[in-house]
Amino acid sequence: MGLVIRNIPRAAPEVIDALAGFGVATVHEAQGRNGLLASHLRPIYRPAAIAGSAVTCEVAPGDNWMIHVAVEQCRPGDVLVVAPTSPCEDGYFGDLLATSLMARGVRGLVIDAGVRDIAMLTEMGFPVWSKAVFAQGTVKATVGNVNLPLVCGGALIHPGDVIVADDDGVCVVRRAEAAAVAEAAAKREASEVDKRAKLAAGVLGLDLYGMREALAAKGLKWLDEAPDE
Amino acid sequence: MGLVIRNIPRAAPEVIDALAGFGVATVHEAQGRNGLLASHLRPIYRPAAIAGSAVTCEVAPGDNWMIHVAVEQCRPGDVLVVAPTSPCEDGYFGDLLATSLMARGVRGLVIDAGVRDIAMLTEMGFPVWSKAVFAQGTVKATVGNVNLPLVCGGALIHPGDVIVADDDGVCVVRRAEAAAVAEAAAKREASEVDKRAKLAAGVLGLDLYGMREALAAKGLKWLDEAPDE
Amino acid sequence: MGLVIRNIPRAAPEVIDALAGFGVATVHEAQGRNGLLASHLRPIYRPAAIAGSAVTCEVAPGDNWMIHVAVEQCRPGDVLVVAPTSPCEDGYFGDLLATSLMARGVRGLVIDAGVRDIAMLTEMGFPVWSKAVFAQGTVKATVGNVNLPLVCGGALIHPGDVIVADDDGVCVVRRAEAAAVAEAAAKREASEVDKRAKLAAGVLGLDLYGMREALAAKGLKWLDEAPDE
Amino acid sequence: MGLVIRNIPRAAPEVIDALAGFGVATVHEAQGRNGLLASHLRPIYRPAAIAGSAVTCEVAPGDNWMIHVAVEQCRPGDVLVVAPTSPCEDGYFGDLLATSLMARGVRGLVIDAGVRDIAMLTEMGFPVWSKAVFAQGTVKATVGNVNLPLVCGGALIHPGDVIVADDDGVCVVRRAEAAAVAEAAAKREASEVDKRAKLAAGVLGLDLYGMREALAAKGLKWLDEAPDE
Amino acid sequence: MGLVIRNIPRAAPEVIDALAGFGVATVHEAQGRNGLLASHLRPIYRPAAIAGSAVTCEVAPGDNWMIHVAVEQCRPGDVLVVAPTSPCEDGYFGDLLATSLMARGVRGLVIDAGVRDIAMLTEMGFPVWSKAVFAQGTVKATVGNVNLPLVCGGALIHPGDVIVADDDGVCVVRRAEAAAVAEAAAKREASEVDKRAKLAAGVLGLDLYGMREALAAKGLKWLDEAPDE
Amino acid sequence: MGLVIRNIPRAAPEVIDALAGFGVATVHEAQGRNGLLASHLRPIYRPAAIAGSAVTCEVAPGDNWMIHVAVEQCRPGDVLVVAPTSPCEDGYFGDLLATSLMARGVRGLVIDAGVRDIAMLTEMGFPVWSKAVFAQGTVKATVGNVNLPLVCGGALIHPGDVIVADDDGVCVVRRAEAAAVAEAAAKREASEVDKRAKLAAGVLGLDLYGMREALAAKGLKWLDEAPDE
Repeated sequence: MGLVIRNIPRAAPEVIDALAGFGVATVHEAQGRNGLLASHLRPIYRPAAIAGSAVTCEVAPGDNWMIHVAVEQCRPGDVLVVAPTSPCEDGYFGDLLATSLMARGVRGLVIDAGVRDIAMLTEMGFPVWSKAVFAQGTVKATVGNVNLPLVCGGALIHPGDVIVADDDGVCVVRRAEAAAVAEAAAKREASEVDKRAKLAAGVLGLDLYGMREALAAKGLKWLDEAPDE
Repeated sequence: MGLVIRNIPRAAPEVIDALAGFGVATVHEAQGRNGLLASHLRPIYRPAAIAGSAVTCEVAPGDNWMIHVAVEQCRPGDVLVVAPTSPCEDGYFGDLLATSLMARGVRGLVIDAGVRDIAMLTEMGFPVWSKAVFAQGTVKATVGNVNLPLVCGGALIHPGDVIVADDDGVCVVRRAEAAAVAEAAAKREASEVDKRAKLAAGVLGLDLYGMREALAAKGLKWLDEAPDE
Repeated sequence: MGLVIRNIPRAAPEVIDALAGFGVATVHEAQGRNGLLASHLRPIYRPAAIAGSAVTCEVAPGDNWMIHVAVEQCRPGDVLVVAPTSPCEDGYFGDLLATSLMARGVRGLVIDAGVRDIAMLTEMGFPVWSKAVFAQGTVKATVGNVNLPLVCGGALIHPGDVIVADDDGVCVVRRAEAAAVAEAAAKREASEVDKRAKLAAGVLGLDLYGMREALAAKGLKWLDEAPDE
Repeated sequence: MGLVIRNIPRAAPEVIDALAGFGVATVHEAQGRNGLLASHLRPIYRPAAIAGSAVTCEVAPGDNWMIHVAVEQCRPGDVLVVAPTSPCEDGYFGDLLATSLMARGVRGLVIDAGVRDIAMLTEMGFPVWSKAVFAQGTVKATVGNVNLPLVCGGALIHPGDVIVADDDGVCVVRRAEAAAVAEAAAKREASEVDKRAKLAAGVLGLDLYGMREALAAKGLKWLDEAPDE
Repeated sequence: MGLVIRNIPRAAPEVIDALAGFGVATVHEAQGRNGLLASHLRPIYRPAAIAGSAVTCEVAPGDNWMIHVAVEQCRPGDVLVVAPTSPCEDGYFGDLLATSLMARGVRGLVIDAGVRDIAMLTEMGFPVWSKAVFAQGTVKATVGNVNLPLVCGGALIHPGDVIVADDDGVCVVRRAEAAAVAEAAAKREASEVDKRAKLAAGVLGLDLYGMREALAAKGLKWLDEAPDE
Repeated sequence: MGLVIRNIPRAAPEVIDALAGFGVATVHEAQGRNGLLASHLRPIYRPAAIAGSAVTCEVAPGDNWMIHVAVEQCRPGDVLVVAPTSPCEDGYFGDLLATSLMARGVRGLVIDAGVRDIAMLTEMGFPVWSKAVFAQGTVKATVGNVNLPLVCGGALIHPGDVIVADDDGVCVVRRAEAAAVAEAAAKREASEVDKRAKLAAGVLGLDLYGMREALAAKGLKWLDEAPDE
């Protein structure tokens, strides 16, 4: 009762790499403040910054069998995205699976569960964003789906969507929107260069963004001293 | 319906710097085990150790407008303290705001919410103690208060209080008590030098602190072997 | 109403050191996926990897008196294991106690509560696995037991059991089983060398472990394209 | 930048009512153990048991404006499903909105955030499944989408899907599968009548389900007494 | 090093009773959406609705000594407010203390920690809002302050402030503002009578509150059908 | 690799029933404030109050097979105690298993995981203390141990220990100590009758327990008015 889909569409490599360069915060803003995965998904080491095409993998609680199945579906430039069918923090993934994924050119793992062997994964330079670090071993008894849409960290992810992950967390970009988002992110980043320079020179955001009038209109008042309580 | 207070009292710079040197654990002990903010406020990088005068900033959930307002009220040596009016882990603060604060000589940020761009903040050397790392963007729609007392991390903070923050977390010292606390902390630290040397030489705390009698009086017994269950 | 047991059995030093080398994930697998402490016990710095004989210490909430008592019972190669009688995240332990433990040759601390002075502990190279980092000071008013069995992080620990701790967390091995577990871990590790090489060379786990037939028997199907929804 | 979809497909009323009768546990089993929302969504009073067609409503954190918009799209037999774009436990919903929904024949609310006025909602008999009870008021400043797919409680929900909710929590059934799931649930329930009678009469599940052989095959052993430790 | 303040100002009884009648949600709105305590403070039984003057009591973790001290300072119409100096969920309070408080005419307890004997408290009709239900007993070893300001559930509470608590949680009203807040709450409630009637009759909030134009101005669009994805 | 122990010792029925009558708070005090399970174990309905002999059952995450095995080992007056080998909140237990346990005279269930069918369990009057209510179904693939010691809710439980559970939570009493604990609890309860009467009559605990001197000795001071800040 599990399905594995062999062929999934992927975004253009240059778009994916551009998104990696912009990072999670900029990409998520560029697509209208959408697509963030929950903040409990944290990198096992820092700094780490990648982007890649999602290969999605559904697992049973305490059962990592389907990760072995998913490995075969991964190609260079992919990011494996794993979510359990009910909450679990077991250590589904360790250095052997990472070795296998690195051999296939996979860029990293996002897992809404636990991971182990993190000292080794750190040495190997294989980045993981996980809900927990936990050595608890898993069984191999239940099948699930690979490369069907799933919810990971509260976000819907289709196979082939672009996953962007860095020290700030993880963001998903719809494959069909990836190029447009990259373009919007580039514009946003360009506009920030100038702003950053001005702010560094001491210009206030209040003036740079022209906020004073709107704040006053909302009733904000400046007093020289605190009123008596 | 928001107020911004322009002038707040601050503690003497040399007192503030002394408190930074003692660190959170010592300062909190020196003032009678008071003033700690909740342990969920963690530094985004380590090591980090600062002290400064609190500029307080109340924000609406998912709305960072007032941080822009608070920046203008910050002076060299300050620490910005931000708390939302209801629990929120959105990413209120990133590298642009940090650039602005650094331009004003601000020493760090304490925020009972989320922060983003932490790779950049780490590179810039701008320390932040936050409840979460989360890229979620915020809006600019609601006004609040700057430099009125607020509760952050479960602790009451007045503008101008001294904020001490390091790898152990965050502590607040009332402005009027800062000098006395610094003095008490200095004494505590001095007394620890000798203790540390004795403990390092193998003297037991039981003997150094003369605890054996009090323990026995409370009924503590030493047995050579565990009793049969 | 507290007891301190002076003499506890300990495992052979070479067995303990072997277990340290294998690490938490391998050791826990080698003993049938048992013995892990809860994942909320995290190291204060990384990497860190130790093993040692458990000296167990029960403390009252917000009261670290018994840790001072436990120090005296520690010998070179031990690991101090502390658990409060009700949940608490106060900072029971800091650099002075660490100095004392290091003077006695203790290898580390596992505490289901808070720890402080972590910048100093990191510099000293004294590893701690704790539930929280929190500077909150404690009192010295209530006695408890040292070297009686206790539950720490959800796991039962007898004095003299072997504690293995690394970046993945903490595991306990029964003293009487330590040699057998070390042997099983050695076998497991040896078998992984060959697997790692094959996986690095691109052999799939599906083939290496011969999983394809079992997966198909469970009903897993491979499709070239996703079915229409 | 928000969209409101006026016309959504709905499942047949008799299918929806049948699903309500089976309840969450049976329905979720009948569709292959899928579709549960996270366990943090709890009813504000018990017992409560409904099913209805999902009208989906995305809201900004601390902003309930879109719920007012969604009300207009609700028809008799619907269930309103609300999810914030970032985690929030503010009290988005109270007795006035419930009055409005009841006037439109709506059967209940599922909200991955907070609710208030629960004493009144309980008196009115308007059931709510929420993440929190919290009186915190919200603003009306940001628009979002109504009747587009969203993730609520970690589950993907399409407008028009059937929501089943009772004391056990909340489950979603795809609209197109609702009839088949209701049929499967009916079979499951029928088969349980006989089982329940046998179990009540003292027949063991081990015998009723014929588990003894499989257990023994997995290595389970029965001993008269516990082995010596 | 503890202080007990014998005389505290209290609000007028008729104001306090009026606030009880309005309830937490209305009162908190009437004072500008301020004053809520954290949502983790939940009533041990429902329905429950009180208001009273705060007698504040600071306790050490796992130590309920000061509650006995605070009882003496309570008068008819008061609400006892207890907060530990570091997070604790021990059962500080049970039926004996409740008997004592009821004998003094106290209306209820708000405690940012645990409570026990809740079956009996329910029978006695003594309402409690707590962070946890936990039987863990406490010691009597450390003194603290009674009737000094404290932070409870993240909110600053002065002795004599009015505590309003019901099924929605707990709210604090500054004593000096209590009469004005009661007046504002009365107006708010009056205005809701008419609104409730209209909403019950099927008038939409969109029309009642005249929201359509503002929504459209923010870019909200209504479509008859969902756009193709 | 699982063991089922058929014969376990049990405490005398009259002792068990006496412990049920005293309740969790009194029993836990009577045995020196020991034996409480974690406060996250909450009853699915209230009031509920039982005591019985523990039949212990270890389960794999997401796998309830061993509960079926444990049922056979239960006798009239027992309480089934279930703990997963890694954290899990799946719905291991529902009305069919409850039917089976009731047929065997079992008094209730304590489970450090999820439960479902709670509306039915409530109607049937079968009490359950659980970590979560969650409908998530489980598989039957992995064996474990029945009637070996296990840790549940952070407490060590031996088969045959007495489990006392009521609205305050769950407590374990060692079988060999049950009679003595019941006797101590009886004394404690007797002493409380008189105290309760005095407190109800307005006698202060400060006087009843003679605390004033000890408080003053610790430095507590009473002031008529708050000192100026």
